[in-house]
Amino acid sequence: MGWGDLGVYGEPSRETPNLDRMAAEGMLFPNFYSANPLCSPSRAALLTGRLPIRNGFYTTNAHARNVEGRSWGPEGHVRHLGHRPQFHPLKHGFDEWFGSPNCHFGPYDNKARPNIPVYRDWEMVGRYYEEFPINLKTGEANLTQIYLQEALDFIKRQARRHPFFLYWAVDATHAPVYASKPFLGTSQRGRYGDAVREIDDSIGKLLELLHDLHIADNTFVFFTSDNGAALISAPEQGGSNGPFLCGKQTTFEGGMREPALAWWPGHIAAGQVSHQLGSIMDLFTTSLALAGLTPPRDRATDGLNLLPALLQGWLMDRPVFYYRGDTLMATTLGQHKAHFWTWTNSWENFRQGIDFCPGQNVSGVTTHNLEDHTKLPLIFHLGRDPGERFPLSFASAEYQEALSRITSVVQQHQEALVPGQPQLNVCNWAVM
Amino acid sequence: MGWGDLGVYGEPSRETPNLDRMAAEGMLFPNFYSANPLCSPSRAALLTGRLPIRNGFYTTNAHARNVEGRSWGPEGHVRHLGHRPQFHPLKHGFDEWFGSPNCHFGPYDNKARPNIPVYRDWEMVGRYYEEFPINLKTGEANLTQIYLQEALDFIKRQARRHPFFLYWAVDATHAPVYASKPFLGTSQRGRYGDAVREIDDSIGKLLELLHDLHIADNTFVFFTSDNGAALISAPEQGGSNGPFLCGKQTTFEGGMREPALAWWPGHIAAGQVSHQLGSIMDLFTTSLALAGLTPPRDRATDGLNLLPALLQGWLMDRPVFYYRGDTLMATTLGQHKAHFWTWTNSWENFRQGIDFCPGQNVSGVTTHNLEDHTKLPLIFHLGRDPGERFPLSFASAEYQEALSRITSVVQQHQEALVPGQPQLNVCNWAVM
Repeated sequence: MGWGDLGVYGEPSRETPNLDRMAAEGMLFPNFYSANPLCSPSRAALLTGRLPIRNGFYTTNAHARNVEGRSWGPEGHVRHLGHRPQFHPLKHGFDEWFGSPNCHFGPYDNKARPNIPVYRDWEMVGRYYEEFPINLKTGEANLTQIYLQEALDFIKRQARRHPFFLYWAVDATHAPVYASKPFLGTSQRGRYGDAVREIDDSIGKLLELLHDLHIADNTFVFFTSDNGAALISAPEQGGSNGPFLCGKQTTFEGGMREPALAWWPGHIAAGQVSHQLGSIMDLFTTSLALAGLTPPRDRATDGLNLLPALLQGWLMDRPVFYYRGDTLMATTLGQHKAHFWTWTNSWENFRQGIDFCPGQNVSGVTTHNLEDHTKLPLIFHLGRDPGERFPLSFASAEYQEALSRITSVVQQHQEALVPGQPQLNVCNWAVM
Repeated sequence: MGWGDLGVYGEPSRETPNLDRMAAEGMLFPNFYSANPLCSPSRAALLTGRLPIRNGFYTTNAHARNVEGRSWGPEGHVRHLGHRPQFHPLKHGFDEWFGSPNCHFGPYDNKARPNIPVYRDWEMVGRYYEEFPINLKTGEANLTQIYLQEALDFIKRQARRHPFFLYWAVDATHAPVYASKPFLGTSQRGRYGDAVREIDDSIGKLLELLHDLHIADNTFVFFTSDNGAALISAPEQGGSNGPFLCGKQTTFEGGMREPALAWWPGHIAAGQVSHQLGSIMDLFTTSLALAGLTPPRDRATDGLNLLPALLQGWLMDRPVFYYRGDTLMATTLGQHKAHFWTWTNSWENFRQGIDFCPGQNVSGVTTHNLEDHTKLPLIFHLGRDPGERFPLSFASAEYQEALSRITSVVQQHQEALVPGQPQLNVCNWAVM
């Protein structure tokens, strides 16, 4: 989902009344980032609090190579690699699981491409496109309703007993985009908008349940997404990154800046906006903090504990690193973003019609060659120029000052970095 | 000012708390349009309720020629043409006037380019850059504060006596952009953001005064702008058109879609969004309706009375016409927009670095030749594709249906159209 997909972030059709209300009752982050411009590495980072280059969800066998989007879907994280028993979520801290070790691509033919199973805990309860039908022609599927019902049931069960952690990872806005019958055709934005409306409606029902159970003021809720809108699927199945450049797969703002809302009545004051630079990895660290725990000490953690920002309005200095594969493409610090490498996709792919930046073309920036700017990074001021259209003059004092600050942070990061074993250098349909 | 310049429309820095509150307390229009992609014709249309092609604020001596931006500024409307006594605002229905017959371009040299006077009613009280200084280097000027004080004084005087109409036409976001010292350097968005912040702060003070005088529930307030953000002045002095294509001077959405907020406590319910297609010309008709008057019957009026939308939530079917000079470039009806002509600017100007669409390039759409699509218009669905990036397939049923509806409305419009005498075919500095 893209930064610009919610009414409260400026989507012109304004079809997310529940998320907009969640923002009005809580805190909105305009400067919040995924950990990667692709779904699976970003979600692996969410669950580990660590950049993909640390947790292994990346490749080393091609420069700036994204983990193939077609190979790992939104649920890929829960197993990290492979569907084998040792990667099952119940082996990794979850007490219950409803979902799939992969996304709803397909339908698969069960030969070259195995079909994707759906599990309840250890038990396989069916397959996408079979027991869980998705009509690729009409876009009709009940999956969001099923996930919603599972979540409502889970919350009801847990609320009677003890504190709980729920990771509600819907994938309706991930192409092939779907919605259930009552939502199909209801959006001004086409099928993608139908999917957003159904997710928005579901969030409304989840928050309502927390109120009904009288646990709203004891439940921290955070809404965000794992990468920017996939403009390759626009207009019918792609979303909006608002005023930002490009989309999913890229390390421009459109690829990684995300909608992000925090809600905790009685704790987080209503109607706030925090300009804290935030990351999806912070949800790991913040969740631990809420549970009175600290991150593991045997490894570096990239996530920040956001509670000071959420509860006391602190603004904490921190960088945002934008990786593709093993390549640090860009770094944001404060309002300045430095691009060390620029690339959208190859000329070859672009000429085949694969366009990550449709309608956008910033000379020397949205390049189709992998351009090396490491010696003289392109620097943008994201306040004056959120669309990354006007690089600062290399000769300006502002450029020199920003470069010096960012270089120092990047050096520190790279000196301390212990890359994880890359787990995705081999990637084929069988791995899926 | 651009559609994307307010926090409530998604500006990432969220620096317009007063306008955002005005929206939360009133009604927000995401689909509201100026009457022209340039300031002066748009403002002439605001004051007459009529398209520039009807009221004469256009040219016929070059195809799709915009009235030269450098020749008429935001206050140009008040005299329509010339500074001669018969065009003085007090001769045209205003009882009081503080302002200038032109904008703050300059400074002028009083020879080839006469300096621009500032008036209080019939009396000239000084000149821009002399008695009303503007520091072009630092951007410092007290003009917004002066206009604010004039407006506060006017309201205080009027409120004791009788109903009043105030047209508060600030120009701080029009290049050369300015702000007063307390606001300079306070925005994350540079000087343009400083100007927006000062306007926002002023709106807050105006609304506060209405409350203090206990006339808030008896005063209808509307905020909008006369054209999209001038991206030619970006990043330092240009604003944001959010997700929309191009900016000022063009008939893409970025050139004419505007922020628009209506506020009338006790009458307009809080927190509403209206998808009514609205126009700055509606302010003429709506103001008349509020005063119990109807538009003149001796001429056609383009403005709609918005009160049914504002008070009863009606959605009224109406087209939006996008003109450049005497050329109908595009028409929107419902969610569909048909482009009969596409043009940004000439190759010659573009090669000189004048770019109305920086970073944006939609093949066959953001053209530098004036492209004739009258036989087969380009049609976009603005809900699925607000950025005008993906023209509908000519062969689709949706295209055929939309074309048929729009063609019928355009024929009706053109058959009934009685063009005004074009007043701007001759345009030089002396006319200013």
